[in-house]
Amino acid sequence: MHFTLGTKKEIQLRWKKIQAQMRKEQIDACLISTNVNLLYTLGKIISGYVYLQQEGDALIFVKRPEGIEDNETSFSIRKPEQIANILHEKNIKLPQTLWLEGGEITHAEWIRYEKIFQPENTIDCTHLLRKVRSVKTDYELTQLIESARLQSLSFTQIPSLYRAGMTEHEFAAAIEYNARMNGNLGIFRIFGQSMEAFMGSILSGDNAGTPSPYDFALGGAGMHVSLPLGHTGEEFQQETTVMVDIQGNYTGYISDLTRTYSIGKLPQKIYDAHRVSIEIQQVLADMGKPGAVCEELYHESLKIAGKYGLGDCFMGTRQQAKFVGHGVGLVINELPVLCDRNKELLEENMTIALEPKFVFPGIGAVGTENTFIVRKNGMEKITTAPEELLNLEDRAL
Amino acid sequence: MHFTLGTKKEIQLRWKKIQAQMRKEQIDACLISTNVNLLYTLGKIISGYVYLQQEGDALIFVKRPEGIEDNETSFSIRKPEQIANILHEKNIKLPQTLWLEGGEITHAEWIRYEKIFQPENTIDCTHLLRKVRSVKTDYELTQLIESARLQSLSFTQIPSLYRAGMTEHEFAAAIEYNARMNGNLGIFRIFGQSMEAFMGSILSGDNAGTPSPYDFALGGAGMHVSLPLGHTGEEFQQETTVMVDIQGNYTGYISDLTRTYSIGKLPQKIYDAHRVSIEIQQVLADMGKPGAVCEELYHESLKIAGKYGLGDCFMGTRQQAKFVGHGVGLVINELPVLCDRNKELLEENMTIALEPKFVFPGIGAVGTENTFIVRKNGMEKITTAPEELLNLEDRAL
Repeated sequence: MHFTLGTKKEIQLRWKKIQAQMRKEQIDACLISTNVNLLYTLGKIISGYVYLQQEGDALIFVKRPEGIEDNETSFSIRKPEQIANILHEKNIKLPQTLWLEGGEITHAEWIRYEKIFQPENTIDCTHLLRKVRSVKTDYELTQLIESARLQSLSFTQIPSLYRAGMTEHEFAAAIEYNARMNGNLGIFRIFGQSMEAFMGSILSGDNAGTPSPYDFALGGAGMHVSLPLGHTGEEFQQETTVMVDIQGNYTGYISDLTRTYSIGKLPQKIYDAHRVSIEIQQVLADMGKPGAVCEELYHESLKIAGKYGLGDCFMGTRQQAKFVGHGVGLVINELPVLCDRNKELLEENMTIALEPKFVFPGIGAVGTENTFIVRKNGMEKITTAPEELLNLEDRAL
Repeated sequence: MHFTLGTKKEIQLRWKKIQAQMRKEQIDACLISTNVNLLYTLGKIISGYVYLQQEGDALIFVKRPEGIEDNETSFSIRKPEQIANILHEKNIKLPQTLWLEGGEITHAEWIRYEKIFQPENTIDCTHLLRKVRSVKTDYELTQLIESARLQSLSFTQIPSLYRAGMTEHEFAAAIEYNARMNGNLGIFRIFGQSMEAFMGSILSGDNAGTPSPYDFALGGAGMHVSLPLGHTGEEFQQETTVMVDIQGNYTGYISDLTRTYSIGKLPQKIYDAHRVSIEIQQVLADMGKPGAVCEELYHESLKIAGKYGLGDCFMGTRQQAKFVGHGVGLVINELPVLCDRNKELLEENMTIALEPKFVFPGIGAVGTENTFIVRKNGMEKITTAPEELLNLEDRAL
């Protein structure tokens, strides 16, 4: 098997992280079949399975691409039922306790795999795998940093893409195109089957306060009822903001970055609120050392917003998001979530997006979002585009 | 509740189609929670549930957007556990037999809903709902026809987007941008959690034969191991083909269309194979009347490909796709599939993409794909961009 996104040693390091959890929970085997976890445990996407036991290299079963050559640890199969036979031939006992990705695979798949392995206990490992993925290896950090670099470059170019008279949709398409030309992979992976987005959202004016069915920081009505998120396609209005939150998937690892612009000059309170967003990020970044409690960062953000009298417009108005940050990585919404009642502790090499945002009726959303790495002394910011609230009209041709 | 993609009467028509199946299978209730089926049974996306019984209007339970006003049939909830209480308050008996979307919701969701409703039997309705969705209403046909019109317009513009010296990725980004400017919604919905794509694929030269883990007609190595599909980003080579298969989601309904171009002049056998693709589509479209057997259309395509000595390069070389067409609609891979052993009969108002394609080592893929509606006398083609194998260099600036 050829390992690609990460050397074999890198991939083995991840197996060991999962295997440590398996021993702790007394799990005999873990069957991985979802694309994101395959990418994590194999460095590539196949149609097939990674089968991990408590010790040693994983066994890999590949349906597609077809016709890989079998060796000691990887096998070409047509259907998962063959896995049990292959284990039998290799004198490997079937597991008594089996981990399946019950929070991601369908019920039909779960039933099928239970029938194949007939374990005494089948346990959902979704949350534990997400916990393992939340702390990045050094290699993963290099990949996320590279995404953040290219995303920052793309964002730095955004003001130059604006033209007077553009509609929201024309601006969105230009931003997406520019990102693609800088190497954006396009696909936007999100945890949870009900979460959807194309490449992100561009919100201007009152649409920034429109509630959405999705659990992102902000909503927007979207261009069409079939994707109720982000811009509607209207023309930009004077004295409104334009918030751009377009994904940073340049390496398989997705960095997260938001910048706000204005159309014309805004009331002073909007510039002030923008600075509060930056202040909240700075305070949380300083607090965000290993051992910090996730909910305490969220509470601190509420406290600062409240201190400036901005509690009612923090993270929305009609519908307020109940978090101020979240992990990022192979999906945009990795663990941990910085929200109330999350007692989880930050760990070194977690990667977190902080996105304190405010919504003002009649004007729009303000604030910035950046991606950080949890280091020994606090969070290190890896997204670097200018944070000031630029007037797009100053730059427009 | 405000109905959007379809009037209330249209949505009720779809409920009745599902309810007819429920009565046939003696199912008391059906709980729908996946985005595509919500779009089908509500005309919009919510975070929440559509609860259908054998008769009458559906009950709608909405988590997000928050704060909808309750009325006789729709209710604001925080969590699905409240549904049982609301049914109790309304003197509605909990179901003894319950349909859940077991082929799409996660195992964790299935377990949660079983606990809420405690039915004697819970049955996976995924396939039956897909069967219902496979036959379109008149309104759905208007939406798909509008997507096909805009997709055809976008494809007609493709040759004008080519510039000499472009890389595959530059061409891909230009095609995507042009589609977006024509109103493409961007998001590409695909059935099956392991199936992924950004907006489709652009394949040139030998990359067209590269096997992919995904079960699309053709593969390609992709730009990055994290999305092994479509173009790699190389420069175009002389005497190769460029096959463009970019999705047609302009209305929530996704039409499917592929066109092939050349870089320079090609060997005669390539033009001949291209004409065989068009011939296969014509023969299948004529066969494709209500009552035609799906596998017979596939067998006919193999027969025609074989007659011209093209069996070995039909639908790939190293890895051959085992179908020649598929349903389209709210997802790109609706039922039915035109493949071996599928005894399903075509029905009036099914919508089918036919995509007979050939791959030639050293040159690339050829063929076209079009979207059709099954009418009384055969399939009606609704995608209309020119089908000839144009040389992009004849048009390039």
